[in-house]
Amino acid sequence: MSKPAIGVIGLAVMGRNLALNIESRGYTVAVYNRSREKTDELVAQFPDRKLVPAHSLEQFVDSLEKPRRILLMVKAGEPTDATIAALRPLLDKGDVLIDGGNTHFTDTIRRNQELAQAGLHFIGTGVSGGEEGALKGPAIMPGGPRDAYELVAPILTKIAAKAPDGEPCVAYIGPGGAGHFVKMVHNGIEYGDMQLIAESYAVLKQVAGLNNAELAKVYGEWNEGELDSYLIDITAKIFDKRDDETGRDLVDVILDRAAQKGTGKWTSQNALDLGVPLPLITESVFARVLSSLKTERVAASKVLSGPAAKPFTGERAAFIEAVRRALYLSKVISYAQGFAQLRAASEEYDWSLDFGGIAKIFRAGCIIRARFLQKITDAYTQDPALANLLLDPYFRQISDTYQAALREIVVAAVTAGVPVPAFASAIAYFDAYRSERLPANLVQAQRDFFGAHTFERIDRAGSFHANWS
Amino acid sequence: MSKPAIGVIGLAVMGRNLALNIESRGYTVAVYNRSREKTDELVAQFPDRKLVPAHSLEQFVDSLEKPRRILLMVKAGEPTDATIAALRPLLDKGDVLIDGGNTHFTDTIRRNQELAQAGLHFIGTGVSGGEEGALKGPAIMPGGPRDAYELVAPILTKIAAKAPDGEPCVAYIGPGGAGHFVKMVHNGIEYGDMQLIAESYAVLKQVAGLNNAELAKVYGEWNEGELDSYLIDITAKIFDKRDDETGRDLVDVILDRAAQKGTGKWTSQNALDLGVPLPLITESVFARVLSSLKTERVAASKVLSGPAAKPFTGERAAFIEAVRRALYLSKVISYAQGFAQLRAASEEYDWSLDFGGIAKIFRAGCIIRARFLQKITDAYTQDPALANLLLDPYFRQISDTYQAALREIVVAAVTAGVPVPAFASAIAYFDAYRSERLPANLVQAQRDFFGAHTFERIDRAGSFHANWS
Repeated sequence: MSKPAIGVIGLAVMGRNLALNIESRGYTVAVYNRSREKTDELVAQFPDRKLVPAHSLEQFVDSLEKPRRILLMVKAGEPTDATIAALRPLLDKGDVLIDGGNTHFTDTIRRNQELAQAGLHFIGTGVSGGEEGALKGPAIMPGGPRDAYELVAPILTKIAAKAPDGEPCVAYIGPGGAGHFVKMVHNGIEYGDMQLIAESYAVLKQVAGLNNAELAKVYGEWNEGELDSYLIDITAKIFDKRDDETGRDLVDVILDRAAQKGTGKWTSQNALDLGVPLPLITESVFARVLSSLKTERVAASKVLSGPAAKPFTGERAAFIEAVRRALYLSKVISYAQGFAQLRAASEEYDWSLDFGGIAKIFRAGCIIRARFLQKITDAYTQDPALANLLLDPYFRQISDTYQAALREIVVAAVTAGVPVPAFASAIAYFDAYRSERLPANLVQAQRDFFGAHTFERIDRAGSFHANWS
Repeated sequence: MSKPAIGVIGLAVMGRNLALNIESRGYTVAVYNRSREKTDELVAQFPDRKLVPAHSLEQFVDSLEKPRRILLMVKAGEPTDATIAALRPLLDKGDVLIDGGNTHFTDTIRRNQELAQAGLHFIGTGVSGGEEGALKGPAIMPGGPRDAYELVAPILTKIAAKAPDGEPCVAYIGPGGAGHFVKMVHNGIEYGDMQLIAESYAVLKQVAGLNNAELAKVYGEWNEGELDSYLIDITAKIFDKRDDETGRDLVDVILDRAAQKGTGKWTSQNALDLGVPLPLITESVFARVLSSLKTERVAASKVLSGPAAKPFTGERAAFIEAVRRALYLSKVISYAQGFAQLRAASEEYDWSLDFGGIAKIFRAGCIIRARFLQKITDAYTQDPALANLLLDPYFRQISDTYQAALREIVVAAVTAGVPVPAFASAIAYFDAYRSERLPANLVQAQRDFFGAHTFERIDRAGSFHANWS
């Protein structure tokens, strides 16, 4: 066996699968876990693979080829800091640490600064694709100093997912926390996608009365067209799945309480800090929170009234097509918001992000992989300075053609008492964004009235205060 | 002149007006500002008032009656920390510092701990009512150790606004950062109120074609009923105001770009941290942000299409009444969200907040003062453990009766292309909250499919994972 070209610390499912992925591309990989059982288990399970177990950090570090490449796959936050602190005295200048955990980008910025002072390279990278992606090919979003990236690029390129055109789903994102930031926004977008699909399900079921077999067929068909994507694909499969225990459709047996791990929340909180409107993803985060209040909702459902249920009298196929269009346009609007956030972050943190390149990385390996991402790449290729995706000719044509359907579905849902916070937020954003004039003049008048906060005028520059009383 | 019973540090408009307010209740007040001109100016402007100027912190501290009571009205953040650091060596155990600035509650929690260790009392208090409130009677929300509050309660009670029943709008809120927290949520609610009024204006103007004179009349009439509040009152006056320069209605001359100072943002970010659904206030914050993208919007308005404009053919009076009902119910839903946030915070931070008492404080002095706050106090008097305001019998009856109007207005606005993010978010929250079953089962199925995140079942406890493929 050759000296390991890279080592992985932290052998929970993601770390372990990434180690196996790297090894499968021809590398020898050192592996270390704080509790040695996991290390031994992994090596015992794969005796023929080029895995070099270490039972101490010293042994692990000594085993590596120089400059050392160390992939940290430990819990984000303090455990990551603790691991870095333990490693530091053992490392030499020029070694590269790669944090592939689910880290908040501000921690990555801080660690980059601290380690740069010590002469160590630090890469914070987003890794998307779950267990299976880690093993077979994830989408990878590395950020940090470019020269550090070059030292790990060959490995990352080999283990990354491949897009339909064969391009690996990895590229240098930018300095500092850029990689983890892009991964965070990816996750926020994922929240939006999932909420939009959930709302399409609610409307198809509760307004048009589709059963699970029909839903499986509808999502399966949608997956052949513009909506072609991993999440639509698995949605079709979910409606087809039986529960082994009860024989019922599994989706009906699953409790309607959605959990979350916090990255959607981070995305919304950052959008609020940057001053970027991100209502759709934020509504999606709040929708999960609201779903978790199951006990309260059950109690409320017994005392709060809604519209009387009405049988569906419309044209079914036309209604389903309207839901499809509503979903696609809402998805476009959600990505327009997410990419506007990337643009604001790129300016705020001075990252020079390549938006089209980022959309390219998303094309395979990750949860939001979808055919339509190519359209985003195309849009930024045509106009790298595009202020908002909605202004791109392709997306403009989608909003021209599909907005009537989105309005129709929101109207149908609101009338029927079916909650569609993300659909409704999508059309509100669209209508506000295309408004030359919003009623915010009244808000400014109120602020000047009660707090002397001043206002601007439409006819000349400056700050003005009126004597209101 | 007697020895000053209290001193004020920081003589910008709020500090200066609070000093004058306190003095007007019979107290001698020491005043100090970092740049001495402001101190001298104030004293010169009011030579007959019992104001004792100080030109150094030492002189200021020495002048005060013991235990000393010092009201800090300096800029939130580092300036407040710097002032406290400069004061500390000059103070004696048992002295009371009161921070009346616009401070984030986590800073107040930190300062409380630090100063308690030094034997000093620290009160972080919300002060609402703007310039005029500070001078004539603000709503006051003090938090910190109760014994510290007792030392300043007589003064705060005298300077506070008086509710219609004569009760002063001040009460001990709770320990630590409770006072500044409640002020933060107050401000968030204010963002929601203002956005809802702005949307009612947009709908009345753009869908039903009301002009400013008619709008002034409508809001004036609304102010006589359930919506009776400071913000509705000033809205009526705003539509009545002429621009001296152009002779046009001033509201039409004001630029539709709303600014903000960040407390709405804090409220949303905290709701995300607490896991409390706060979509309406958050949509309101994002609406302000979107309004500020004026240049982008003007450009977008030229390329993005909307529904063709249609003349209003409905019954005008009925439509106006529907908007009124939509506004009132949306306001109820917004406060339900805000008070649910207070409830979650009370549990999370162990504050034992008195929700009915807080609504009482809001009844006068502050920007959100309104007749309907009495209904909130009543609701919590009847049931202090109420999970959500919507479940209270009075508010339940409002949602029973008014939801049809809210649906009608959202439908009309979405159809006409008028953005109503807060109205739409209100009905989505209402419909979700009263849903025994939401489509979140699909979200959990997806999460288990791609990430093995497991799901719960409806028929028995536990975490389950399906073999999806």
